[in-house]
Amino acid sequence: MKKLVLLRHGESTWNQENRFTGWTDVDLTLKGIEEAKNAGILLRKNGFVFDIAYTSLLKRAIRTLWLALDEMDQMWTPTELDWRLNERHYGALQGLNKAETAKQYGDEQVLIWRRSYDTRPPAITTHDKRYPGLDIRYRNLATNDIPVAESLKDTVARFLPYWNQSIAPQIKAEKKVIIVAHGNSLRALVKHLDTISDQNILNYNIPTGIPLIYELNDDLQPIKNYYLGSTDEVQEAISAVANQGKSGA
Amino acid sequence: MKKLVLLRHGESTWNQENRFTGWTDVDLTLKGIEEAKNAGILLRKNGFVFDIAYTSLLKRAIRTLWLALDEMDQMWTPTELDWRLNERHYGALQGLNKAETAKQYGDEQVLIWRRSYDTRPPAITTHDKRYPGLDIRYRNLATNDIPVAESLKDTVARFLPYWNQSIAPQIKAEKKVIIVAHGNSLRALVKHLDTISDQNILNYNIPTGIPLIYELNDDLQPIKNYYLGSTDEVQEAISAVANQGKSGA
Repeated sequence: MKKLVLLRHGESTWNQENRFTGWTDVDLTLKGIEEAKNAGILLRKNGFVFDIAYTSLLKRAIRTLWLALDEMDQMWTPTELDWRLNERHYGALQGLNKAETAKQYGDEQVLIWRRSYDTRPPAITTHDKRYPGLDIRYRNLATNDIPVAESLKDTVARFLPYWNQSIAPQIKAEKKVIIVAHGNSLRALVKHLDTISDQNILNYNIPTGIPLIYELNDDLQPIKNYYLGSTDEVQEAISAVANQGKSGA
Repeated sequence: MKKLVLLRHGESTWNQENRFTGWTDVDLTLKGIEEAKNAGILLRKNGFVFDIAYTSLLKRAIRTLWLALDEMDQMWTPTELDWRLNERHYGALQGLNKAETAKQYGDEQVLIWRRSYDTRPPAITTHDKRYPGLDIRYRNLATNDIPVAESLKDTVARFLPYWNQSIAPQIKAEKKVIIVAHGNSLRALVKHLDTISDQNILNYNIPTGIPLIYELNDDLQPIKNYYLGSTDEVQEAISAVANQGKSGA
């Protein structure tokens, strides 16, 4: 039996302001920092040791990992960072809050985006300062890979090759793995592992800062999954993210 | 012309107490944290961007790297951690302060250790709680590689293969590299790069928290080297480490 740990980053400044974040590199709030530390404490108490940690190129995920590893006293854990674990790119919505989005695009359109697996938000241009091609951390990406707006389907499509080529082989080789990522890149993984339909995955919300443990068989099919932590904490976190996470950002 | 950046971790709690640290995993002091942040600020002001960062498995080096990358807003920098960048292992001296060491082994013996390139301090046994084989982070090391006491010569000998096999090829491939490590693992590198004699390397002290820049030709031979920062800061740091670093720990 193989164990995989998923961890969604703690609250960020734009979560708090309810803005579409996507690839915007905002930091954790004080609450987010606490969430990350608590995740580390839970992992330590439960005796976790990782052979490798995976995270995105966005600091809210990296800092969550760092804080958790620090609490575990395992800062020495090998870590691989990859853009394919980044949050879904929200295109021209990035930076807008709920009210601004509704005003600019209308309630009906917002509802379509929220309920659709494969509808993209409006794209940014390559001259937009939000274009990832202008950010030095993405300098090695092929132009075709640089998103200007992603549907959840797009996020799944760019996440899966990384899972198949980099992460899955490590788990199959008995390595203990933690993935610290974002609402939608983790949805992409959960959709794949649990074979969740395009429609149902939209309603699936992973709470922030609570380690989600998957027990997998040799073919990496889930035997079961569960959250670390007390039932109360977990329920509270799930409710919080269901209320706040409507934007899915 | 290729540039390589070396950074020695900031002050640790045992630096402050003047204890032989070696592989003991002590953390930075508040001063050490400030040194690391300042290094990051200097690197940012000077426009450094790294393709890869190398550090040891010890938290005082890892935290120095993390704090510097955070100040640079480049937490996404790929990082490789390796035990071969660890500090020299001080064997049974680890944990002793200067006075304790002199009392236990005599002033004459302490002088021999300090002035010798290839004399080892007394070894620990494999049952000693300081034995690295008991620490989970070293679980993948071959038993032969696990030190019980190192001379500086031993540190050079285990550092160089990593330099030759992992770091040097990256620099030759035009990658921008930073190495965040320890007084003696960095001495090992400087000895190699600058062809410093066994005797002279003992008197070479790298200041903590000040980035040391090497400009190298295509064969990785030094063209020149210099410290980032104001002349005053650098002079102060060099004097501080020369006074404090007599133990070389």
